[in-house]
Amino acid sequence: MSDFRILAIPGSLRRASFNRGLLVAAEQILSGRAEVELASLADIPLYNDDVRALGYPEPVEQLRSQIERADALLLGATEYNFGPSGVLKNAIDWASRPPDPPLQGKPFGLVGASTGGFGTVRSQLALRQILLIVQALGYPGSLHVSGAAKLFDEEGRLTDEATRQSLSDFLDGFLGFLERVGSG
Amino acid sequence: MSDFRILAIPGSLRRASFNRGLLVAAEQILSGRAEVELASLADIPLYNDDVRALGYPEPVEQLRSQIERADALLLGATEYNFGPSGVLKNAIDWASRPPDPPLQGKPFGLVGASTGGFGTVRSQLALRQILLIVQALGYPGSLHVSGAAKLFDEEGRLTDEATRQSLSDFLDGFLGFLERVGSG
Amino acid sequence: MSDFRILAIPGSLRRASFNRGLLVAAEQILSGRAEVELASLADIPLYNDDVRALGYPEPVEQLRSQIERADALLLGATEYNFGPSGVLKNAIDWASRPPDPPLQGKPFGLVGASTGGFGTVRSQLALRQILLIVQALGYPGSLHVSGAAKLFDEEGRLTDEATRQSLSDFLDGFLGFLERVGSG
Amino acid sequence: MSDFRILAIPGSLRRASFNRGLLVAAEQILSGRAEVELASLADIPLYNDDVRALGYPEPVEQLRSQIERADALLLGATEYNFGPSGVLKNAIDWASRPPDPPLQGKPFGLVGASTGGFGTVRSQLALRQILLIVQALGYPGSLHVSGAAKLFDEEGRLTDEATRQSLSDFLDGFLGFLERVGSG
Repeated sequence: MSDFRILAIPGSLRRASFNRGLLVAAEQILSGRAEVELASLADIPLYNDDVRALGYPEPVEQLRSQIERADALLLGATEYNFGPSGVLKNAIDWASRPPDPPLQGKPFGLVGASTGGFGTVRSQLALRQILLIVQALGYPGSLHVSGAAKLFDEEGRLTDEATRQSLSDFLDGFLGFLERVGSG
Repeated sequence: MSDFRILAIPGSLRRASFNRGLLVAAEQILSGRAEVELASLADIPLYNDDVRALGYPEPVEQLRSQIERADALLLGATEYNFGPSGVLKNAIDWASRPPDPPLQGKPFGLVGASTGGFGTVRSQLALRQILLIVQALGYPGSLHVSGAAKLFDEEGRLTDEATRQSLSDFLDGFLGFLERVGSG
Repeated sequence: MSDFRILAIPGSLRRASFNRGLLVAAEQILSGRAEVELASLADIPLYNDDVRALGYPEPVEQLRSQIERADALLLGATEYNFGPSGVLKNAIDWASRPPDPPLQGKPFGLVGASTGGFGTVRSQLALRQILLIVQALGYPGSLHVSGAAKLFDEEGRLTDEATRQSLSDFLDGFLGFLERVGSG
Repeated sequence: MSDFRILAIPGSLRRASFNRGLLVAAEQILSGRAEVELASLADIPLYNDDVRALGYPEPVEQLRSQIERADALLLGATEYNFGPSGVLKNAIDWASRPPDPPLQGKPFGLVGASTGGFGTVRSQLALRQILLIVQALGYPGSLHVSGAAKLFDEEGRLTDEATRQSLSDFLDGFLGFLERVGSG
């Protein structure tokens, strides 16, 4: 049994977010095989390097600890404007700073859902580039869920069985990758 | 005389930000040729689509009005983690939403300074991609200032004359571009 | 009447290429409004800077002349492996070199078709980045045709009317852009 | 002892290519620790899917065999026009096609040298994106050699000791990565 600890981070603050819904479904699917913790970015302030120099704000400290404890990250790659949400990028900006950036060398996987047709493909490519700076190790597989409005209910719960199966297949590959590369 | 109104937006909240310093220098250089307004992103909240649905928060409304009134944008392309700062991306996420996204079709130019060797080249490429969604029209020239720590004083003021000349050349090209394409 | 000269360049050498088919349809749609010439990259050799130093090979010289004469380019953005085809990138490598790179400052538009679901979105983003080096001026609109196998016949002719209408709308916008920015 | 087989592929056909020179230096540095084979792309034809359908041309077949036999790839990421050379992209287009794409899942590392200041940073980012399609596994470290004209002799041999040391450090990290992930 692998028993990886995975921190799942959705890029959206919307209550019924599709990307949060994907991560909740991932937690259900991985039950018994990995421990999934769901992070929230709602209280993370805008990055300010003058503030950082005085000490990390408490919500940032908490996120950094969650990342530190995790063997791997699973990001819900919310796409706004052909890129990752500012919300998620801002959190990465805090989590990549010294001392001991918790993102350093961390294995990660990307899933994403969008109402449009491209399933966060541009956001995911940008996130892979961004996470290089901390030599985070990306699982090369990916999941792109298009036309999300028909696949989730109004609470943001994944209701489409074919999508759940694709997510399950993705997660099998992701766990295999984590077995291969070891924890971060 | 052209008399363009240019909104200058730095991607960093740091008091002595190099990218803010570049924009302040641009304002000085353009004096008499264009009216430059310097925006601040310090009070923009994290994007939340549930909040947006209820109405734009006041600081967002103000930024949207500033963009609306401007003929063009000049962005200080602060680079964090091989991409635009989350702070700047988050502001774009608010400014690209309906009704009447103020960024729509807006001409823009990019300048950037970094302590390292690449002068925000990756951030600038990502910003061009991001701003496509609103069909904003990018000036194809660019300015990459590397090794910034030696070129600005501790208040973030540009002190290096060669860099000031490069910025001046960039701005000449940018104004020519605005003459060519018209205001947004 | 605009009467622009447009050079259309498909990124694929396949006889029944969807991207070539899109460009042939564009030529038909623009008939009477713009003169479209269809280029072929079949005889362009691999770029070798030692060869270039001795003089451009004849097929390269011809392509450079075609670009030179054109007011604008329309690229069929064939996507292989999440990027532009090597065939198209190789041609750009030749056309961007001194003296007087014919691509310099040239306005361009991008259309693309793929069998998969993303309609060359990644290739188009990469092409915009590549063409920055010569300060080519990209039309910010774009056309992404997905599921191409059902929309073209086995000779590569566009047969789907909805796609033809989308292409026609794209071309209206592109001509408007050319009116706005002038020829390259 | 690791004894990895590494296929080194330069993106340039120039006789005195800096990127080829980096790979020759890598071969020397790795002597006794890994077996390095240096590939040439000079005889690879332009990709044509109609040709592929009839059977791979002999030089392509040979490159595919070289990749197949290698435990990992080391690419010399020649940058032309803000992206990988068309020469290298074209070779990847051939090597990623069925049956049994030899690039599938292959670990790879990137090094690059340029005369300008950015050391192929844009080409390397694009190559990481491109190689995702075959789920190739990129070493997250990288080497960017700027101002190459002063660091190599006129035969393209690396003469700068500081650069040789940086390359050696990169290669130590790369071999550690190969130990971690296993061969492709």
